Amino acid sequence: MTEATPTALFSAPIEVRWRDLDAFNHVNNSLYLTYLEQARLDWLAHLPHLWDRANGKPVMAACQLNYRAPIHWPASIEVRLHCERLGNRSITIGHRIVDREAGRLYCDGNVTLVWIDPESGTAVSLPRVLREAVQAAL
Amino acid sequence: MTEATPTALFSAPIEVRWRDLDAFNHVNNSLYLTYLEQARLDWLAHLPHLWDRANGKPVMAACQLNYRAPIHWPASIEVRLHCERLGNRSITIGHRIVDREAGRLYCDGNVTLVWIDPESGTAVSLPRVLREAVQAAL
Amino acid sequence: MTEATPTALFSAPIEVRWRDLDAFNHVNNSLYLTYLEQARLDWLAHLPHLWDRANGKPVMAACQLNYRAPIHWPASIEVRLHCERLGNRSITIGHRIVDREAGRLYCDGNVTLVWIDPESGTAVSLPRVLREAVQAAL
Amino acid sequence: MTEATPTALFSAPIEVRWRDLDAFNHVNNSLYLTYLEQARLDWLAHLPHLWDRANGKPVMAACQLNYRAPIHWPASIEVRLHCERLGNRSITIGHRIVDREAGRLYCDGNVTLVWIDPESGTAVSLPRVLREAVQAAL
Repeated sequence: MTEATPTALFSAPIEVRWRDLDAFNHVNNSLYLTYLEQARLDWLAHLPHLWDRANGKPVMAACQLNYRAPIHWPASIEVRLHCERLGNRSITIGHRIVDREAGRLYCDGNVTLVWIDPESGTAVSLPRVLREAVQAAL
Repeated sequence: MTEATPTALFSAPIEVRWRDLDAFNHVNNSLYLTYLEQARLDWLAHLPHLWDRANGKPVMAACQLNYRAPIHWPASIEVRLHCERLGNRSITIGHRIVDREAGRLYCDGNVTLVWIDPESGTAVSLPRVLREAVQAAL
Repeated sequence: MTEATPTALFSAPIEVRWRDLDAFNHVNNSLYLTYLEQARLDWLAHLPHLWDRANGKPVMAACQLNYRAPIHWPASIEVRLHCERLGNRSITIGHRIVDREAGRLYCDGNVTLVWIDPESGTAVSLPRVLREAVQAAL
Repeated sequence: MTEATPTALFSAPIEVRWRDLDAFNHVNNSLYLTYLEQARLDWLAHLPHLWDRANGKPVMAACQLNYRAPIHWPASIEVRLHCERLGNRSITIGHRIVDREAGRLYCDGNVTLVWIDPESGTAVSLPRVLREAVQAAL
């Protein structure tokens, strides 16, 4: 297991939808996880080679989010991902959700993913292409 | 600020919807925050007196979730809330999302709420009725 | 193809969630389709025998919704389904979304479903158990 | 009331999210209404002058959607809006949801909006800036 200093991985613009707002007139707290999911998938889709889904798929093990400022409508946001910890079968991806123009911080925290064999349900090694992408970013 | 041993506050059954599933065929990770939100609102609605919304409203400051097992369809779940920390202007509410029949643990963790004055945006004291309900449960 | 006078099929209580509201402080228009979907699935799950999913799955072909009154929070609603048209490979299911207590009408209209073979993508005959359930209700 | 031949009003690219998929692995039927809502709001935001929200807000009166083909992930889609009917207090906006590259049709149909006075709940005249934008497009 390698403890890494934060390593920038990927930055994804996210289109905030009006439907993401709730009755308090700002983006609902649950949408932040959807934004993070979308940014992760964009990152994975941009890896130099596709990881073989037959060998395992990412499953969320934990998340920790700090809500720093409400996101109002309309907003132009970006999710910045970095690696906080690269394990053998799991990875902790830190995030910063910021305003695309002003850079204001809306949310930071992290998400831990485990790769799971869909048949057995047990944890498997991270896809090599993912590990290499993270190490190349160090 | 009072550090409290976990104090059961409320238990709310939640109806899982088919739409809560994602393409992995289990409940999407973001829905857990919606289930917690719904359980919190049910709890607040069951307090002996309504808290006066004019004096402040709860805003999410942070959350930490551990995903213990996937929730498949159909599922019969329950959110159990307890107090982890009662502050002057914030409260940390722990949760356990469990199967209503088998008691299997799907998710644990906590959510920290701060009460905010909607005009000034600054933190205000927790509503008295909420504080009393928590202390009565100790 | 059989043109039928409206035939009550099923009635499903739906739990409105706070997250279903939008920034206009009433249930967002897209949620009505989720409520209808949930009620349809509850109906299908209550059929005397399970339809064999291997032979086809329902796909939405069309919908028509009339929004009669906004749904505010909290609300206690019910979706009432009836058969408007029973075809060989499709069915048009009418609906009324009403207040569970006062009976107020929030939405009426219908949804047309086609059964599709997942392999070929072509329409197939409606499951026999579904057809029988509709005809038994005539 | 003016019956108009379809008049192109606006075209909005929509970012499909992975979360928009359901357990059938295509975009859930309810999301189409969210895409339409987002496109409408983008259109309204692009009008030469802002309509005065104090005088009324748009409320959905009805919708009719034909689902022509499933939207799979990833997809690059666009919502094209046209005016089907311009009334005094309501407007029927037709739509075509198409693939941005191949132009394949995913959904067509229309949405009828009524402008409502938020105080009284009664229908009011369409905002002048909206009427002028539609008529200019004729």
